[in-house]
Amino acid sequence: MSQLRVTVWNEYRHETHPGIPADIYPQGMHAPIAEHLRAQGMNVRTATLDQPDHGLPDSVLDDTDVLTWWGHLAHDDVSDALVAKIQERVVLGALGLVVLHSGHFSKIFKTLMGTTCNLKWREIGERERVWVIDPSHPVAAGVPETFEIPRSEMYGERFDIPQPTSLVFVSWFQGGEVFRSGCAYERGRGKIFYFSPGHETYPIYYQKEVLHVIANAVRWAAPAPDAPAPVYGHVPVPLEHVTSNE
Amino acid sequence: MSQLRVTVWNEYRHETHPGIPADIYPQGMHAPIAEHLRAQGMNVRTATLDQPDHGLPDSVLDDTDVLTWWGHLAHDDVSDALVAKIQERVVLGALGLVVLHSGHFSKIFKTLMGTTCNLKWREIGERERVWVIDPSHPVAAGVPETFEIPRSEMYGERFDIPQPTSLVFVSWFQGGEVFRSGCAYERGRGKIFYFSPGHETYPIYYQKEVLHVIANAVRWAAPAPDAPAPVYGHVPVPLEHVTSNE
Amino acid sequence: MSQLRVTVWNEYRHETHPGIPADIYPQGMHAPIAEHLRAQGMNVRTATLDQPDHGLPDSVLDDTDVLTWWGHLAHDDVSDALVAKIQERVVLGALGLVVLHSGHFSKIFKTLMGTTCNLKWREIGERERVWVIDPSHPVAAGVPETFEIPRSEMYGERFDIPQPTSLVFVSWFQGGEVFRSGCAYERGRGKIFYFSPGHETYPIYYQKEVLHVIANAVRWAAPAPDAPAPVYGHVPVPLEHVTSNE
Amino acid sequence: MSQLRVTVWNEYRHETHPGIPADIYPQGMHAPIAEHLRAQGMNVRTATLDQPDHGLPDSVLDDTDVLTWWGHLAHDDVSDALVAKIQERVVLGALGLVVLHSGHFSKIFKTLMGTTCNLKWREIGERERVWVIDPSHPVAAGVPETFEIPRSEMYGERFDIPQPTSLVFVSWFQGGEVFRSGCAYERGRGKIFYFSPGHETYPIYYQKEVLHVIANAVRWAAPAPDAPAPVYGHVPVPLEHVTSNE
Repeated sequence: MSQLRVTVWNEYRHETHPGIPADIYPQGMHAPIAEHLRAQGMNVRTATLDQPDHGLPDSVLDDTDVLTWWGHLAHDDVSDALVAKIQERVVLGALGLVVLHSGHFSKIFKTLMGTTCNLKWREIGERERVWVIDPSHPVAAGVPETFEIPRSEMYGERFDIPQPTSLVFVSWFQGGEVFRSGCAYERGRGKIFYFSPGHETYPIYYQKEVLHVIANAVRWAAPAPDAPAPVYGHVPVPLEHVTSNE
Repeated sequence: MSQLRVTVWNEYRHETHPGIPADIYPQGMHAPIAEHLRAQGMNVRTATLDQPDHGLPDSVLDDTDVLTWWGHLAHDDVSDALVAKIQERVVLGALGLVVLHSGHFSKIFKTLMGTTCNLKWREIGERERVWVIDPSHPVAAGVPETFEIPRSEMYGERFDIPQPTSLVFVSWFQGGEVFRSGCAYERGRGKIFYFSPGHETYPIYYQKEVLHVIANAVRWAAPAPDAPAPVYGHVPVPLEHVTSNE
Repeated sequence: MSQLRVTVWNEYRHETHPGIPADIYPQGMHAPIAEHLRAQGMNVRTATLDQPDHGLPDSVLDDTDVLTWWGHLAHDDVSDALVAKIQERVVLGALGLVVLHSGHFSKIFKTLMGTTCNLKWREIGERERVWVIDPSHPVAAGVPETFEIPRSEMYGERFDIPQPTSLVFVSWFQGGEVFRSGCAYERGRGKIFYFSPGHETYPIYYQKEVLHVIANAVRWAAPAPDAPAPVYGHVPVPLEHVTSNE
Repeated sequence: MSQLRVTVWNEYRHETHPGIPADIYPQGMHAPIAEHLRAQGMNVRTATLDQPDHGLPDSVLDDTDVLTWWGHLAHDDVSDALVAKIQERVVLGALGLVVLHSGHFSKIFKTLMGTTCNLKWREIGERERVWVIDPSHPVAAGVPETFEIPRSEMYGERFDIPQPTSLVFVSWFQGGEVFRSGCAYERGRGKIFYFSPGHETYPIYYQKEVLHVIANAVRWAAPAPDAPAPVYGHVPVPLEHVTSNE
């Protein structure tokens, strides 16, 4: 099997100014994610918002099987044209998409979901416990039945998303909330995974279980080389002879 | 229980010019639909594209529990602002939405689905047989296990929609295709039903089974008066005391 | 609409001996549930394990639209013949079924689910918080977005059930677990709701939110009077003329 | 990756007597299926009803990743103990199961589904057209958007199964019926695929598209080597410190 081609996209605004995010992720949050995926044998590039074409010209998209997405401060700075292009590549082109943490509010995720993708949140460094709900799902492979994130941002229900095709993880938060933290979707030819753990002020993207889940999600979302390409539109000639009904 | 308030929206462009649609539906396709729903005891108004505000000013939307939607020629003439408003009212406000036939390509349906909503089609007046797939679903109540539409436009798979929460009907077409013709979705607080039978050049909106399904779909999509209204956003104070994890 | 006919079934073994269950539920756990449903205008009878035919002779089942089920100590004492009869009435007859708390391990629930229905549990009187996950679902109507059960038995994931058609509630437990506490299924013509809160040593079946959910579940699970009755088996004559393909 | 271990189980009663099945499948229907899977590089054995232990002693099951199942005349001759064992291995052990054609009425499929699995049928050698409904699903990889089975037994809706996690194929029949012919389920740790094409009196198990789908289904149903193994039962010690709520 040929190498999986992954593009790790990051807004990369938090980490470019002095502060906690830069202290924790001096090369950006995309760096540890990309490093882990490379260590899994994937062919990985990174791309960021402030690069030309947001780092995602057609030449890069054409060479991408799975795109991972992290955004937070600047969702609105992503061009609508790029969002439309990614949506089309997911739905019609079988591009895989892995949306991370605050990416829940990205244009591309909201566009693909059709809902507000709103949620509750609180940032006091509380404990999160991630539970495997669907042990048969490929994204859960090798994940312990539960793991703990010592200090996390709380994301809580009601999370305004369509019911996932498979609910893979649910998180418990110390302050009293629950959250559907791992959700698998299919949209058209493409597969989408949303995974909530990860935040710019906590070292969550260095935690081995989190990196393991992201790698699983990338593998799962990758298109089959021979995924069917449906034909749409006018088909004037019926497959079967049609007799009059009058 | 108070009367269900329904707004039957129709593009109403086909029927306003001499031709087959005007011959079959002299008052527009919305007329027989509205008449049937009124006969069911519902409080029904109609609205059309070329009225001011497309017939859907806030005063009308505020007074609507369920909106039915038929469009074909002029999807692009519907204002983006209205589409955004309806989406918000479905997802956040629990407005019910029943999308009919070529409404599959309406802005509002595509926006709520997040996919292209494309399909195959052919118009040679062939037979369609609608089969009940989920006899437990409220929209199937009183529907025979199968019924025939003598002359129909073929809509065929692949239909590019998210997998429905419940697949209620699947249609057989004489020329060799199948189609998921009755699909139930929940999006946020709102419920959406797509039902494909119905076309401007066939008298399908006079057929009793079709009208019966539309009435069922309207009843099912209606919001509960006391549907929960989720709270979103920042919740600084946890419900539970949070102890340090360090 | 005619009155909904409900049979509240209870194992009724805990409460018939001196002890905490008898102190809390002197007439059995079925008593407050039945009382609440009656107050909602339903036509309610109760039935218990140690009655003749477990309280469910055909004459009772024939007169029941929705059956609620609570069992714990004596699942094995329920006759296989009754279980098969209830399964058939749900799947083929559209009988509604509401399974409560430790009923997750009842023969009828396991038979309808096809899985072990196993889970984690702990009984230390910890807090449970029930969250509404699907605000569009009829069983959530009138339920606050979250409510607290002050002292509850912990039921935790992994809960070995098929993915529900709609996941309506998820519970948070003080000790660190989460649980899919409200699950809606359709099986054949019938609808099934599982709701986990409720225990013999806590007064949970007097809590107004819990009773409200049970009443909603009963209403939702009730069959439509005209639910389609599929025809199965050999259909020698095709609907359409079949031509040779050779 | 180590070789996938597949056991192709066949009732093997039709083909052991003179007649059409024996003419078409002189070594049994399991022969062409096993041959195709072997050609895909899988480690394949076959097993049949009339072997000792129905060909499935523990030593064979222990050495099986995915089991395919074909039965028709003699579902009742399969021992209940074996059915319970297979169910447990699917749900708790992540054994993959691929159920073929008339296997819809096998004890193991009915037990895992919890419904009657009944359907309509007719055997006049009519045309079946299989349509891909979910092009993102691994079982659809490399399958044309539609393919034709020249002479097939009709299986028609209503098919009394739980709604599948993913509906991958829907079939059209010449005589007027439709059928959910490819259905993916997860049950516990295991994955199950039902695929309806295939019959003892037609050479369907020699058709390349059908064999291709079966091979895809086997690969998809195979457990991940590191699929999570949930822990069930009593967990007396909470993960988190529990404070009194009184």
